[in-house]
Amino acid sequence: MPPLNIPDLIRKKRDGETHPRAELEALVLGYTRGEVPDYQISAWLMAVYLRGMTPQETADLTLVMAESGDQLNLGDLPRTVDKHSTGGVGDKTSLILTPMLSALSLTVAKMSGRGLAHTGGTIDKLESFPGWTSELSEERFLAQAHDIGLALVGQSRDLAPADGKLYALRDVTATVDCLPLIASSIMSKKLASGAHTVVLDVKVGAGAFMRTLDDGRALARAMVDIGTRAGRQVRAVLTDMDTPLGHMAGNSLEVREALATLRGEGPHDLTELCVALAVEALAAQGEDETQAEARARTTLEDGSALAKFRAFIAAQGGDPTLVDHPERLDVAPGREDVGAPVGGFVERIDALSVGRAVLALGGGRERKGEAIDHGVGVELLRKPGEAVQAGEAVLRLYHRDGRGLETARDLVRSGLSISALAPVPDDLILDRVN
Amino acid sequence: MPPLNIPDLIRKKRDGETHPRAELEALVLGYTRGEVPDYQISAWLMAVYLRGMTPQETADLTLVMAESGDQLNLGDLPRTVDKHSTGGVGDKTSLILTPMLSALSLTVAKMSGRGLAHTGGTIDKLESFPGWTSELSEERFLAQAHDIGLALVGQSRDLAPADGKLYALRDVTATVDCLPLIASSIMSKKLASGAHTVVLDVKVGAGAFMRTLDDGRALARAMVDIGTRAGRQVRAVLTDMDTPLGHMAGNSLEVREALATLRGEGPHDLTELCVALAVEALAAQGEDETQAEARARTTLEDGSALAKFRAFIAAQGGDPTLVDHPERLDVAPGREDVGAPVGGFVERIDALSVGRAVLALGGGRERKGEAIDHGVGVELLRKPGEAVQAGEAVLRLYHRDGRGLETARDLVRSGLSISALAPVPDDLILDRVN
Repeated sequence: MPPLNIPDLIRKKRDGETHPRAELEALVLGYTRGEVPDYQISAWLMAVYLRGMTPQETADLTLVMAESGDQLNLGDLPRTVDKHSTGGVGDKTSLILTPMLSALSLTVAKMSGRGLAHTGGTIDKLESFPGWTSELSEERFLAQAHDIGLALVGQSRDLAPADGKLYALRDVTATVDCLPLIASSIMSKKLASGAHTVVLDVKVGAGAFMRTLDDGRALARAMVDIGTRAGRQVRAVLTDMDTPLGHMAGNSLEVREALATLRGEGPHDLTELCVALAVEALAAQGEDETQAEARARTTLEDGSALAKFRAFIAAQGGDPTLVDHPERLDVAPGREDVGAPVGGFVERIDALSVGRAVLALGGGRERKGEAIDHGVGVELLRKPGEAVQAGEAVLRLYHRDGRGLETARDLVRSGLSISALAPVPDDLILDRVN
Repeated sequence: MPPLNIPDLIRKKRDGETHPRAELEALVLGYTRGEVPDYQISAWLMAVYLRGMTPQETADLTLVMAESGDQLNLGDLPRTVDKHSTGGVGDKTSLILTPMLSALSLTVAKMSGRGLAHTGGTIDKLESFPGWTSELSEERFLAQAHDIGLALVGQSRDLAPADGKLYALRDVTATVDCLPLIASSIMSKKLASGAHTVVLDVKVGAGAFMRTLDDGRALARAMVDIGTRAGRQVRAVLTDMDTPLGHMAGNSLEVREALATLRGEGPHDLTELCVALAVEALAAQGEDETQAEARARTTLEDGSALAKFRAFIAAQGGDPTLVDHPERLDVAPGREDVGAPVGGFVERIDALSVGRAVLALGGGRERKGEAIDHGVGVELLRKPGEAVQAGEAVLRLYHRDGRGLETARDLVRSGLSISALAPVPDDLILDRVN
C-alpha cells in the first residue's frame, strides 16, 4: 500500500467522504507521533466538525485513540464494569456506586481523574481520607481488584495520548462541541481502561456540558454505539444537572454524604441515581431489571456496600475508622448561610453557580496541578420545590478564614430563584439509552 | 474595542457568520506577523472553504492582504493598466499586449512572475534576450514607465506577504480550490501593484486551473467584483486553454512568435486574443469598442507596438537589434518531429501535455529558483481542425542534446488525438465579464 498523503485525506473529509480505519490511523497516530503537523490536523478537525462522521468512522477513531498508548488488560478479572459521568456539580455517585457494584459481585478496576473548573473529580474526593492514594502499581491494582472487587487508580499519563493531543488542539480551534469528537474522546479512555461493561451517566442541564436533553440523547447514543461496535456492553442514563446532586458540593462534604448514602440514609435523588446505574450494570450482564433493583437496594440496607468501601479505603492507605466516623473528616470551620430573599418556593439552585462557588472557596482548581482545600464547600439546606420563609437559610457556605467568601456568596445568590407558586419537580432520570 | 479572540472568530466562520474587516485583519495580519499560529488559521481556512465568504468579505480580505506589505504607488502615471492571466501553456500574450497598450497611450508599469511547473512566466521569456533584466530600482522603473509607457519588474518579495503565507498553508491543508480564496489571492497582488485598470485573462480547459467554463465565469465574476469594490476598473475575458495558444511553447520560441505577432504576422488565435484584451483595456477607459478594436489592430500593422517593445527591451538592458533579427535568439539545435499515428483531422493537442513536455526538455522549473534552458520547446506544426496524413509531422520538439526527449515525446504523443471527422473548432474567447 502506498503511504497515505495527508492533504488527500483532508480533502476526502472536506468533501464529505468516509475514512476507513487506516486513514484515521495515518492522521491521528501520525499526529500523536509528531509526524503530521498540527496545522493539517486542525484543518481536518474543522472538516470533521462541518461534515460529520459516520457511526463506523466514529467507532474506528475511538479505537485508534484507545490503542495509541497504554491499555489496561483486565483479562482474568470477572464481570469488569466501569462507570463514567460527563461531569456535574455535587456528583459523588462513583463513591457510592463502585462499592455497590463490588458488593453485587461485579469487579470495578477503574481509572479516575481529578476535578477541573466547576466539576469535581473522584480522586480529589477520596483524598479527603488522609493517607489514601491513587498511585498503585499495575500489579497491586489488579491484585486488589481481584481480592475485594474494587480498586481505583489515577489516570495513566499515557492513556489514549492521541485523545489528549487532539483535545488540546480542538480547544484552540473552535472544534470542541462536535458530537463524534466528544463521544470518541470519552470512549477512547473507557476502551483503553479495559472494562467489559461501561455505564454512562450523561448529565443534562445548566451545570453540564450538554445543555438540552436532545443533545444529551445524541451523545449517549453515539457513545453506546461506539462501545457496541468495539464489542463492549455499554448503557447510558440521562440525568438532570440543573441542580446539584444531593445536598453537598465540596470534597469532604460530599464524602460525608456518600457515607450516609452507603448507610442507607442518603438523599433521595442521589440514592435513586446510584440504584439506577447499578441496575444498568447488572442488566448489561443479562440480569432481570426488577430483581437487579432489589439486589442493588439491599447493598445499601445491609451494609455490604459500606463494607466494600471500608476495605477499599484501607487497601489504598486510608484510615478505615473514618468511614464509620465521618464527623472526623476535616471540614472547614467557617460557616455562612445565604437566606431566601423572599418567601415562596425554591424554584432553582443553579448547579453551575454552586460549582463555581466551591471553586471560589478553594475547593477546586482552575488549572491542572493546583492544590485544593478538601474542607470547603456548599450545602443545599433546601432543594428545589421546597417551601421557604423570607430570610430562611437556603444555602450554607463552608469557608476557611473567609477565603473567596464574597465571590461565593454572590455566585450562589445569583443562582437562587424563589417563586410564588410551587414548581413542578423535574425528574432526575430523564431517559435511558442502550 | 477589546482584543479579538481567535477561537471566537473561527467559531463565527464555522457557524456561517460574516467577518467585518477588523476581524479579517486580526486573523490574517496576526498570522502574517507570527502572532496567530498556523493551526488556528488552517482551521479557519477550512471553515471558509466549507462556509464561503460574501462578496464584501472577499473584497475586504483582498484589501487586507494587499495592504500587508509593499504597495506600488503609480500616482502620477496616466491611465495605468495591468494584465493578469490565470496561467496557460504557450501564453506569450503579455509580450504582445503590453507594448500594444503603451502604443495606445496607456501606461503599463507591471510586476511579473516566473514560470512554475507546466505554466510559463513572462520574465523567463524576456530573459531570452541576453542582458535584459527585471531588477530595476523603483525610481528607474517609474521613470521608464513615464518615458516609454512600459516597464516590467520582478515581483517584490514583500508584495502581499499575507497572501504568500496563506497560500503556503492552503497548499498543505486541502484549501486551495476555494473560489473566494483564489480570487482574493490573485487580486491582492494586482491591487498592491497599483494600476487603476486591470484586464484579466481567465483560462479555462485542460491546461488551466479552471477546468470548466462555469468555474471560470465564477472566478472572473469574483475578481471583477473585488476590483470594483476596491475602486478599480476590472474586466475579464474567458479564453480556451485546451490547446496551447499560437504554435510555440518554450521561452525563445515564444518570443519569436510574439515578435512575428507584433509585426502583424502572428497566428490568428494569439492575435485575436491580444486585440480582445486591448479592447477591454480601452473600453475600461470609456472608449467605444468598435473604435478601440480598430486602434488596437493598427498598433500591430503600423509597427508602433513593435517600436515600443524595442524601446522597452533596450531600456532594461537587452539587445534591441534582436527584436528585428529573431533568428539570432538562441534556440536549441536538436529537432525531432512527432507524426500523426493515422490520417484524419487533428482533434486535440492537450495543453497540459505540451506544457509538461517543455518542462521535461528543461524549459521550465519544478521548484522556485531552478535554472532553465530558454532554447528548448515544442512547436505545433498543425493545430486542431487541420487535416493530416498518416505519419505527417504534427509536433516538433526542440531539444538540447536529447535531454528529456523520451519523456517529452511520450507526453506529446499521449496528448495528441486524430479523428476521422473534421471537428467543430472551439471559440478561443468564451465569454467576457465586467
